[in-house]
Amino acid sequence: MALIVQKYGGTSVGDIEKIRTVARRVINSFKQGNQMVVVLSAMAGQTDRLIRLAHELCDQPDPRELDVLMSTGEQVSIALFAMAVKSMGYDASSLLGFQVPIHTDGLYGKARIHEVNTNRIKRELEKGRIVAVAGFQGLDENGDITTLGRGGSDTTAVALAAALNADVCEIFTDVDGVYTTDPNICPKARKLDTISYEEMLEMASLGAKVLEIRSVEFASKFQVPIHVRSTFSEEKGTMVTAETRDMEKVVVSGVTYNKNEARITMKHVPDKPGTASKIFKPVFEAGVIVDMIVQNPSEDGYTDLTFTVPKPDFHRTLKRLRDVAHDIGAERVMGDEDIAKVSIVGLGMRSHAGVAQKMFNALAKENINIMMISTSEIKISCVIEEKYTELAVRTLHTAFGLDSDAQEAD
Amino acid sequence: MALIVQKYGGTSVGDIEKIRTVARRVINSFKQGNQMVVVLSAMAGQTDRLIRLAHELCDQPDPRELDVLMSTGEQVSIALFAMAVKSMGYDASSLLGFQVPIHTDGLYGKARIHEVNTNRIKRELEKGRIVAVAGFQGLDENGDITTLGRGGSDTTAVALAAALNADVCEIFTDVDGVYTTDPNICPKARKLDTISYEEMLEMASLGAKVLEIRSVEFASKFQVPIHVRSTFSEEKGTMVTAETRDMEKVVVSGVTYNKNEARITMKHVPDKPGTASKIFKPVFEAGVIVDMIVQNPSEDGYTDLTFTVPKPDFHRTLKRLRDVAHDIGAERVMGDEDIAKVSIVGLGMRSHAGVAQKMFNALAKENINIMMISTSEIKISCVIEEKYTELAVRTLHTAFGLDSDAQEAD
Repeated sequence: MALIVQKYGGTSVGDIEKIRTVARRVINSFKQGNQMVVVLSAMAGQTDRLIRLAHELCDQPDPRELDVLMSTGEQVSIALFAMAVKSMGYDASSLLGFQVPIHTDGLYGKARIHEVNTNRIKRELEKGRIVAVAGFQGLDENGDITTLGRGGSDTTAVALAAALNADVCEIFTDVDGVYTTDPNICPKARKLDTISYEEMLEMASLGAKVLEIRSVEFASKFQVPIHVRSTFSEEKGTMVTAETRDMEKVVVSGVTYNKNEARITMKHVPDKPGTASKIFKPVFEAGVIVDMIVQNPSEDGYTDLTFTVPKPDFHRTLKRLRDVAHDIGAERVMGDEDIAKVSIVGLGMRSHAGVAQKMFNALAKENINIMMISTSEIKISCVIEEKYTELAVRTLHTAFGLDSDAQEAD
Repeated sequence: MALIVQKYGGTSVGDIEKIRTVARRVINSFKQGNQMVVVLSAMAGQTDRLIRLAHELCDQPDPRELDVLMSTGEQVSIALFAMAVKSMGYDASSLLGFQVPIHTDGLYGKARIHEVNTNRIKRELEKGRIVAVAGFQGLDENGDITTLGRGGSDTTAVALAAALNADVCEIFTDVDGVYTTDPNICPKARKLDTISYEEMLEMASLGAKVLEIRSVEFASKFQVPIHVRSTFSEEKGTMVTAETRDMEKVVVSGVTYNKNEARITMKHVPDKPGTASKIFKPVFEAGVIVDMIVQNPSEDGYTDLTFTVPKPDFHRTLKRLRDVAHDIGAERVMGDEDIAKVSIVGLGMRSHAGVAQKMFNALAKENINIMMISTSEIKISCVIEEKYTELAVRTLHTAFGLDSDAQEAD
């Protein structure tokens, strides 16, 4: 007998018929002798409906009250799901964030889970019940409702799995697993059987949208095995687990891309201590998250500094830096929005030489110019012209032997 | 400075613009130096939407989960209301049943309030906040959500007013007070300035739909003054309070009617001890609420027994009683659905003779036959043919001097 935590997203519970399908699926696992804890998101469309109501009322809805409002979406889902299970002759109990309780900090709209109390859930399980827990919501120390932010239900599921010491946390979604790259732009993309937490984190933060990044961090910290799979099929999906020796044999696990960043270059910057600090202080203070930073070797006491920022922050960052450039005596500030970042990710890079070289060669063969390079232990990212994104992804996918039914090319 | 509890019904918060109107109205009272606790119902239509979802899923939704589902309606209202207040520059805080907390028994769908803890509300009020409390919901001793049944938000408001020792409980609705009778069938109906709890209870249970009956019982028990008034005007409405000496001067305060009952007669019943018990046992066991019961004087050891039941229970009651009639040797069972009950209500009846006589005369003058009569200390009810309902109400309204701009007739 295993203890399984399952999470179903908004499209999986999008209407009454789908809720029935999920109930049947959960009951099937239950009948096989498993204890079942099910985390649900709000029915597709409900979250948007509630946000619309709030914004009809005012431009900047109060964060505390917005959480009170938003948390009703998941409440509706778990009540309907528990009704469905009971109407099929099995016992179930829905639990809200305050009933578990799931304790969080008080950051409305993006709260972090501090502690999950498992007593109530265990009592319900011992009574032979299927337990439905509202995703996305918790309770702060004042007894007020908080929500965990976008993708929060994934985090709820992983946190419950960790606290309950569950055998597996199954994340059901509308795709059937984690792919080597985006199948929409690369028809030869292949579903991965397994991927490590570290790789998944790089994949998630680089643009893959299967799992919310905080849930992967949580899973990694508490070693919760995650099974990402499709609500609409019985096929196995992708296991996200701790690193195994086998995994290192694969050099590159996936290719990702990100078109949501822009590049800023400050030319001819006086190269002396404290300059970088002066340049980035106003950027950080504006809450802008800087991704890649590249500084050229100094020449005649001057250097060029290039970095990327999210596209929505591009114009205001550019404006602020033009003032800074004048103050510190830099020549000028240039920007480019038509860029993309393509990356390769894989644990195997740590022990394989020549991976970067192979990436650069592959891009060069297609006459794709590399504007910036950034590397970590298990990933290499290149900034290129945006128009080459799809070509670059397909090229790298083939070059690193990721194509379905392909062997690694030399 | 007064402490005021206000309750707004579903039509009063039916859309975003109406929620803004309610917020402005509450802020106005607040600006006059009052502490404000506001109880809201679900936005009009939302409760029906949720019920529809549940019934799309199954015929008999699980009661516990139905309460989890239904309680989201009020949660949405208080969140939006608190947002509206804050966006207008005043401080507010929404509180759900579990946050107050409002403790109830565990009867899902029709829970009764056991205790209201006022600590949290008082803390919020002391911070200068307008407090919005979700109507209709509470928490049972297991920490599960319960709902109070139809009209439950009235009960929430009165219970809060009682626990907080509020100066007044204002019930805002889509009518502007309690009327002497239904203005839809009697154009001369007049708004009452005051009415006693006892009269209001008789009016409510006899068919007036302004206040939920349990809320009046609660108010009477804890001597909470209720002010029933319109959301859409500034006019004073009707005060529902403890009896005052002045009230007794008025013989009849109102005329009510009820078309939702049916009459059942068992003919030629052997008149011996235990017979009534044998007849009503299966009726009560079926959960049918019997209203009026009339037994004719016995003749030759046989009697006729007549009583009224709610129309939806008519056919099954009739069926059960036909079996009983056979068992106890009664002649037959007859039923009549085309009846109505008209009643006059007034504290003054206790000290005025001849009120019943005047009622019977007034009906007789219009050739309206009286089928059954039932009296209490402060009301007299007559069952008549349904088609005469409107005529009877208007006739009695005039006869007892209730018409607007009229003096009591002799």
